[in-house]
Amino acid sequence: MKIIHPVLTDGQWRPARNSIGSFRAVNPATGEELADFYPISCLADIEDALQAAQYAVPGLIKTPPEILADFLDLFAERILAHHDDLVETAHLETALPKEPRLRLTELPRTTDQLRQAAAAVRNRSWCRATIDTKTNIRSKYAPLGGPVAVFGPNNFPFAFNAAAGGDFAAAIAAGNPVLAKAHPNHPATSRLFAEIALECLKKCRLPLAAIQLIYHLRPEDGLKLVSHPLLGATAFTGSRSAGLSLKEAADKAGKPIYIETSSVNPIFLLPGALSERADQIAVELFNSCSMSAGQFCTKPGLVVFLRDENGERFLAMIKKYFAQPQPGFLVSRTVLEGIKTALKAMVDHGAEIVVGGTEQEGPGFRFANTLLRVSGDVFLRHSEEFEREAFGTVSLCVLAKNEEQALEIAAALEGSLTGSIYSETQGNDDALYARLEPILRLKVGRLLNDKMPTGVAVVPAMVHGGPYPAAGHPGFTSIGIPASLLRFASLRCYDNVRQDRLPPELRDKNPTGKMWRLIDGEWTQKDI
Amino acid sequence: MKIIHPVLTDGQWRPARNSIGSFRAVNPATGEELADFYPISCLADIEDALQAAQYAVPGLIKTPPEILADFLDLFAERILAHHDDLVETAHLETALPKEPRLRLTELPRTTDQLRQAAAAVRNRSWCRATIDTKTNIRSKYAPLGGPVAVFGPNNFPFAFNAAAGGDFAAAIAAGNPVLAKAHPNHPATSRLFAEIALECLKKCRLPLAAIQLIYHLRPEDGLKLVSHPLLGATAFTGSRSAGLSLKEAADKAGKPIYIETSSVNPIFLLPGALSERADQIAVELFNSCSMSAGQFCTKPGLVVFLRDENGERFLAMIKKYFAQPQPGFLVSRTVLEGIKTALKAMVDHGAEIVVGGTEQEGPGFRFANTLLRVSGDVFLRHSEEFEREAFGTVSLCVLAKNEEQALEIAAALEGSLTGSIYSETQGNDDALYARLEPILRLKVGRLLNDKMPTGVAVVPAMVHGGPYPAAGHPGFTSIGIPASLLRFASLRCYDNVRQDRLPPELRDKNPTGKMWRLIDGEWTQKDI
Repeated sequence: MKIIHPVLTDGQWRPARNSIGSFRAVNPATGEELADFYPISCLADIEDALQAAQYAVPGLIKTPPEILADFLDLFAERILAHHDDLVETAHLETALPKEPRLRLTELPRTTDQLRQAAAAVRNRSWCRATIDTKTNIRSKYAPLGGPVAVFGPNNFPFAFNAAAGGDFAAAIAAGNPVLAKAHPNHPATSRLFAEIALECLKKCRLPLAAIQLIYHLRPEDGLKLVSHPLLGATAFTGSRSAGLSLKEAADKAGKPIYIETSSVNPIFLLPGALSERADQIAVELFNSCSMSAGQFCTKPGLVVFLRDENGERFLAMIKKYFAQPQPGFLVSRTVLEGIKTALKAMVDHGAEIVVGGTEQEGPGFRFANTLLRVSGDVFLRHSEEFEREAFGTVSLCVLAKNEEQALEIAAALEGSLTGSIYSETQGNDDALYARLEPILRLKVGRLLNDKMPTGVAVVPAMVHGGPYPAAGHPGFTSIGIPASLLRFASLRCYDNVRQDRLPPELRDKNPTGKMWRLIDGEWTQKDI
Repeated sequence: MKIIHPVLTDGQWRPARNSIGSFRAVNPATGEELADFYPISCLADIEDALQAAQYAVPGLIKTPPEILADFLDLFAERILAHHDDLVETAHLETALPKEPRLRLTELPRTTDQLRQAAAAVRNRSWCRATIDTKTNIRSKYAPLGGPVAVFGPNNFPFAFNAAAGGDFAAAIAAGNPVLAKAHPNHPATSRLFAEIALECLKKCRLPLAAIQLIYHLRPEDGLKLVSHPLLGATAFTGSRSAGLSLKEAADKAGKPIYIETSSVNPIFLLPGALSERADQIAVELFNSCSMSAGQFCTKPGLVVFLRDENGERFLAMIKKYFAQPQPGFLVSRTVLEGIKTALKAMVDHGAEIVVGGTEQEGPGFRFANTLLRVSGDVFLRHSEEFEREAFGTVSLCVLAKNEEQALEIAAALEGSLTGSIYSETQGNDDALYARLEPILRLKVGRLLNDKMPTGVAVVPAMVHGGPYPAAGHPGFTSIGIPASLLRFASLRCYDNVRQDRLPPELRDKNPTGKMWRLIDGEWTQKDI
C-alpha cells in the first residue's frame, strides 16, 4: 500500500488534507525515485497551518529570550546527535558528497548558524532598542505578528533547509513562527529536521505551532500562501522565475518577501594580476566554479579579462582544469536542464564552448565541466543573455578588447550577490581598479579583492544580498547574524507607555546588563 | 502672456520639455486660482533628470560627509533667512495658519530635521559599520546608486516638502540625489525651497543634479518614474490609491518604495479612564482632531469606548466641542470631496452623524467639524468601510457593547500609524489593558498611553510607519533620524578588500574617533 507521509501542523503529524497528489524524491546519482511518498499540499493545509500559527504568535512574543535561545541551542545539539541519519538521507536525496561537503562543512555550518542565532537572542542587541529619555519615546524591532513562510532551495539541504537553515534560524530568533516549505528534492531530510525541531519545541515548552512543515505546493497555492492575510513574511531562495512570481503576489498583498534568486558573480581579472599570478588564479577559479559541482549561488559565472596574450594563456590554463576531472552529480534533472537552456542561449547569441557542453552518460545527473568564451563586443550586444545563471561547473569568459570595454562590461551588468576584482599586488593595477570599483561596487552586495566568492562566512558583517534582481531589496542580507533577523521584524514604538507595560528591552533597567541600546543617541550597555 | 515656470534639471532652471499642459495652484481660503503657471512634466523631463542624477551619484558618494553635512546645515540656515517668503507663500497655497502652524511649528521642525540629518551625516554611526577582524569582512549601509524620487504630500508644505522635508533630508543624508516631485497644491513653496537648495549646492560645490524639481506628473508618468531603471528608490506620502498604484509599479521593477498613505489612528478609551477624567480626555481628543483642521496623518479617526452611561456622557461632551468653533480651511477641494465620500460610505453603512456633516458656505474650502457614532455590532459588520481616512476634523466613535466587543474591534482593524490606549491611573483598567495591548500592538507602528497621536516628535526613537496598509513595509520609519536614512541605503560588504581601498568608515582607524561601529560583535568607538 502506498503510504504518503503526513505534514506537520500545530504540533501533530497528520495526513495532508485534500492533498492534490503525491511525489517522490529522486536519487540524483541514479536518476531513480526513492521509496517514500510525500503529499502535495493544497490550500487547506496552508490555512490550517496559518490558523495554528496565529496562536503561536502571542506565545512566542511572551516567551523569554532565554527559552527561545535554549531551543535554538538544543536544536543544534540534537541535529548533531542525528548527524549520521541526516547525512545519509541528504546524500541520498541530493548526491552531494558526504565528506567533506555534507558532514564536515554544511552540517557544522547549520548548527553554527542556529547557535549564533541563539546567542543573538540571548544578547538581545539585535532588536536595536532606541530610547529617548526626554520624550519617553522608545522603539525596537519586534516579531512581525504572523508566521514566516520559508521556501528552502535545492542546493543546501542543511544550511538553507526550510526547517533548520539560515532563514529558519533568523525568523525564529526574531520571534516568529515558521511555516517551512521544504524543497521537494529533499523531503526526507526536511522531515528529519522538523521531527527534531518538534521534539525540541516540546522540551522547551514552546508553542508547538512555532514550526510547521509542508513539502510541496502547486505554484498557484504558493502565491496564495505568500499573499495570505495571516502571513507575516516570506523568505524564498530558488529560481528567478518562481521567486519573481511569488514576489509579485506578496508585494501586491503588502507582505514583505525576501527573495534570493540568481546571480552570475562576475570576476574581473586585471592585467597586472594575470601577468603576476595567472597560475594561482586559475586554480582558485576552477575550485570555486567546481565546488559542489558548481551549485552555489555565489559560483563565478562570468570571468572578465583582456583579450591579449596573457588573457589567451590564462584561458588555455583554465581550459585544462575544466577538462580534467569527472564532474560531480547535480542535485536534480531540473538543474541539468537549466544548464542546457542557459548554454543554448549563450551559444545562440555568439558564445563559443571552449570545453564541455555535453550531458554525461548516466546513471544520474551529470554535465561536463563547461567553459565558454565570448568577445566583449558580442557580450555587450546581448548582455542579458549572457547573464543567465547556470548551476553547475559552467563559466563564461568575456574577453574585453581593452580596459575601456572591461569598464563597459561592468556597467552593463545586472545586480549580483558578489563581484570580485583580482589586481596585482605591487600597485600596477591600481589606476584601473580605481575606475572599475565605483562601477562594480553598485552592482553587487559583496565586493571581493583577490578572492573567489564561494565559501560564504557566517559572520556579522557578511552580506548575502545585493541589488535587484540578485535580491528583492538591497538593504537586507540573508546571511550574517544578527542583521539577517531584521528581515523578519517590525519597528514598534512606545510613546509615553508606563514602565511596567514596556517590553523588558525598553525599560529603564538594561535587562541583561550587557544588551547594547541606543539611548539619547549613544550606544550603551547602561541602565537609564 | 502666459509664463510657465521652469523645472530644475541638472542645476538649471529650464522650460519643461514637451510639457503636456500647465496648472495653477489654488488659494484654499478663496477657492481662486493663483497667478503663476507651472508645467505638468512628461517623460522627457523625468529622463533628463534621471540622466543628470546618474552623474551626481558618484559625486555624492565621493563627497566627504563633512561637506554634505555643511550643505544640510546651510540649507537650514538659508531657509530661516527666507522664512517670511516661505510662510507667506505656503499660507497662500495651503491656507494653513501662518501662526503658530507655519512659522512657529512647521518651519522650525523642517530646519531641525535638516540639522538632525546633518548631525547624523557628521556622526556617521547611521551607516552601521560592521567589521569582523578575523575574516576581514566589513560592511555598512551606503547610498543606493540612483536618485530617490520624493513625492511630497498636500498637508505639510514644509516638513514633508519634496524639496526640503523629512524624506528629502533622509535621502540626501544617506548620500543620494533627490528628484523632488512637488505636491501640485503648493508649487511656489516647493520652488522656493529648490531655489534655496540650489544656491546652497553651489556654495558647497556639490553636484548640482543632487537636487532636481518637477511639479506635476500624469499618473502614468508617475508609474514610469518609480519603475525607471535609473531610479534608486521612491518615498511617497499621499493618498492610498495613488500610493498603492505607484507601489505596484515600483515593486514590479524591483525598486524600493516607501509609501505612507492612510491611517485611522484608533483611540481606545478604557472605562476607568472615562470615569476618572472624561473632561480632560475630551479636550485632548478634540484638540488632536481639529489641529490644522484635522489634516494630519496621525489624526484620531476612530475612537472606541463602551456604550454605557459614561460613554454616552463622554460623547455628549465631545459633541459640544465639535459643535462650537468654525472649522479651519482645508488645503484643497480634493480634501473636501474626500470627506464627503468617506462620510457617505460611513453613513450608508450605518453610522450616524452626531454633529456636522455639511460643507461650509464659501469662500474657500471648509467642512463642518463632524462627529459620527456607530455601534460595535455595525462596525464589525463592515469594518473596512469605517476605516476610511477622512482628512478634516472628522472622527467616528465606535460604541462597543462590552469589553469583549472592544477587543474584537481592535482585532478587526487594519494597520495604522498609531494607536492610543487611555487607562485609569490607579490600575483599575490594567486587566483590560493587558488583554487589549497584545492585539492593538500588532496593528500599529506607534502605541501610545494616555496621549493623543498628533504632534510627532522628531527623535531617534520615533516610528512613523507601521503595518500595511499604513506603510508599505513594517521595518522602516519615515520620521526619526538616523533610522529614516536606512530606507535609502544598500547594504554593501567588502570582503578581503585592501585597507586603502575601503571607505573611511570601514578602515581600521575610526574616521571621527567618535563614530559607533560594531566590531567583532561589540559596539565601540575605538580603532581596530
